Amino acid sequence: MTTLEHCQQLDQNDPLRSLRDQFELPPGLIYLDGNSLGVLPRTAAARVAQVVTEEWGQGLIRSWNTAGWFDLPQRLGDRIATLIGAGPAEVVATDSTSINLYKVLSAALLIARNDHPTRLRVISERNNFPTDLYIAEGLCREHGGTLTLLEADELQAALVPESAQDVAVLLLTHVNYRTGAMHDMAALTAAAHRAGVLTVWDLAHSAGALPVDLTAAGADFAVGCGYKYLNGGPGAPAFVWVHPQHAERFWQPLAGWWGHAAPFAFTPDYKPAPGIGRYLCGTQPILSLAALACGLDTFRAAEPLGGMAALRQKSLALSDLFIALVAQRCAGQGLTLVTPLEHAQRGSQVCLARADGAYAIMQALIARGVIGDFRAGDGGRHPDILRFGLTPLYTSFADVWHAVEHLRQVLVSGEWQRPEFNRQQAVT
Amino acid sequence: MTTLEHCQQLDQNDPLRSLRDQFELPPGLIYLDGNSLGVLPRTAAARVAQVVTEEWGQGLIRSWNTAGWFDLPQRLGDRIATLIGAGPAEVVATDSTSINLYKVLSAALLIARNDHPTRLRVISERNNFPTDLYIAEGLCREHGGTLTLLEADELQAALVPESAQDVAVLLLTHVNYRTGAMHDMAALTAAAHRAGVLTVWDLAHSAGALPVDLTAAGADFAVGCGYKYLNGGPGAPAFVWVHPQHAERFWQPLAGWWGHAAPFAFTPDYKPAPGIGRYLCGTQPILSLAALACGLDTFRAAEPLGGMAALRQKSLALSDLFIALVAQRCAGQGLTLVTPLEHAQRGSQVCLARADGAYAIMQALIARGVIGDFRAGDGGRHPDILRFGLTPLYTSFADVWHAVEHLRQVLVSGEWQRPEFNRQQAVT
Repeated sequence: MTTLEHCQQLDQNDPLRSLRDQFELPPGLIYLDGNSLGVLPRTAAARVAQVVTEEWGQGLIRSWNTAGWFDLPQRLGDRIATLIGAGPAEVVATDSTSINLYKVLSAALLIARNDHPTRLRVISERNNFPTDLYIAEGLCREHGGTLTLLEADELQAALVPESAQDVAVLLLTHVNYRTGAMHDMAALTAAAHRAGVLTVWDLAHSAGALPVDLTAAGADFAVGCGYKYLNGGPGAPAFVWVHPQHAERFWQPLAGWWGHAAPFAFTPDYKPAPGIGRYLCGTQPILSLAALACGLDTFRAAEPLGGMAALRQKSLALSDLFIALVAQRCAGQGLTLVTPLEHAQRGSQVCLARADGAYAIMQALIARGVIGDFRAGDGGRHPDILRFGLTPLYTSFADVWHAVEHLRQVLVSGEWQRPEFNRQQAVT
Repeated sequence: MTTLEHCQQLDQNDPLRSLRDQFELPPGLIYLDGNSLGVLPRTAAARVAQVVTEEWGQGLIRSWNTAGWFDLPQRLGDRIATLIGAGPAEVVATDSTSINLYKVLSAALLIARNDHPTRLRVISERNNFPTDLYIAEGLCREHGGTLTLLEADELQAALVPESAQDVAVLLLTHVNYRTGAMHDMAALTAAAHRAGVLTVWDLAHSAGALPVDLTAAGADFAVGCGYKYLNGGPGAPAFVWVHPQHAERFWQPLAGWWGHAAPFAFTPDYKPAPGIGRYLCGTQPILSLAALACGLDTFRAAEPLGGMAALRQKSLALSDLFIALVAQRCAGQGLTLVTPLEHAQRGSQVCLARADGAYAIMQALIARGVIGDFRAGDGGRHPDILRFGLTPLYTSFADVWHAVEHLRQVLVSGEWQRPEFNRQQAVT
């Protein structure tokens, strides 16, 4: 049996343990929800205060130039690029993931239709994050296309060239939000390209959690989230990447002045900025971008310690430990592991299904100061889920031990059956 | 001649003078650019710090419920509604003005096409703010429509029913960003409706600057800006209003999970939220929304003093004074008043044209601590412009006196001709 002492020893020996000091972690809380909202970087309070008091308060309109507000989307984009295998000037931090997805999926559909007028179908995963499906559904209606939802294990077959002749785009979230299962981006992209299909990747649960290499995979488009593993704060702006070979072929439909080649010429005709710049639209929320910059800063300290590769190694060690502890300590409690055991197929979270009570079990854990989250199933193939995000920048091995111990106690004691844990309410 | 003493007396007698104390105004600065970026409300630094340190730092994911993050777009929308003549639950604060315009113009085009398949034309003003035209241009291309740009004095004729049979939408900014000229929203909306045309109003330069009554005008759609007269901070989220009769007829194309009827049911099919809720898309930048709330708070203190009507009265007194002082003190200096003298046609800014040197004159003023801005002309009917925003919450009559005195000195001395003021650079 794995002991707490063993886990504490793992923390002692963890070459990344000092990275945790970059964050404000509420005392007594075991926070395993950094895949929903990352924790507060220590620098953020002072930095945001400076933006408010000095840059806005004193600099006022001048700060667009003097404080570098204008090119924040590009500068933060360049830093995100280093985490996802993109080049300089290929990424901008802007708007929300949903809106960025609308931009790139629109562009992808335009390119597909231009090159192959009969390609009108978008393929995605049935339990992809819903907003991705909603955006795709709307765009398919607009473009006269169809959206086909498949299970993950049906994707390869659907990308056989003979089956995919009417397919324009493969739209996938790299790591599934419900299961933590990770797609093989390079293999699926290669299969898609063999079938003449473009790929759009949502990196919401991978950017900052594990190494991503969009360039090596030959991906076409990507979007991702600023407030999960990038620790950018609640509702932080998202990001968007477009392969340079596609960036200037069309312009995306949200063609606003920030994406104009000369926004301050104030000409009545739209002329798109070169490259990724045309994926900007309107004025961006500077306070929120400033906080995102602090989140991105926390990855700098990881660089001399091995960067994303080292973070990935720790993330897998954390999830291996979580899985082992659940197997050892919660056997016979009706939990099923949903996250793949295979490292190559696992993101940075552990998901457990249970036929009943998953919602209440998570409420009982939260009451004990262990924060994960609950994701409702569909009553069919996809069950209700307990989701635990493991964020290698700040999650410790002892955190994992304590979390599983609380889970064990909640289950064994029947504590989760108390009425107060069974009132359904909004849960993020 | 109007004296400084007279202006100081106007400030003494100004019933709204205490409202200025709600803001942090940099000492020694005369800030006449609140129509580009409003000044910092005194409450904002502490409130944003609380959101960062307590709500994000300690509350973490729980704050979506416990700190009321979820319904911030609706709650701020309800407060904006009181400034623009909209009802409760008719406005949401979200995204950028450009993106919100895309949503409402899409919806307007869908409604128009549904009711009258031959109506495919959008009419707007040639010197409307460019991003509005870019968004309209993109949507017209997408919907197979055309965008017709007219001068302001050509609009009424274009809305004669016989001329407007193919027109779907009239898209106007209520107060023109270049000239400060205000359209008669009620009259133009009535003319549009007589011709079967829907109206979309951009309130970027009117919300918070002067009374707007969308309901009384019978307008159809409106968007507006959070960072100008609403003092929401750099890049603050914008807002969107849809007349209740249209709100549920279609859903807008940016159909993301925040606009879903049950976002946390995580169903794969999009089902739009009732009413204005469906005009939300993705997760919103909470830090920036919190600052916008502080900006909106500053209007509360104005309510017992007469609210928007009293603010409007002061705004007109400020611009009347500005115009009179320029006439008295800058005669013979080549300045032309672009802003209408007629109160009913004037927004809350004063714009002056000059055949040459407008850019350098503004740079010289900024170097003296008088901040307005420069807007480039088109070399034709629309000249280069010096723009001075008058924000009745915090601009004083003495500010106006000093600003015009600096302008006089810059012109009379030829100071603006110094080389350092003639280097063109990005100006917001």
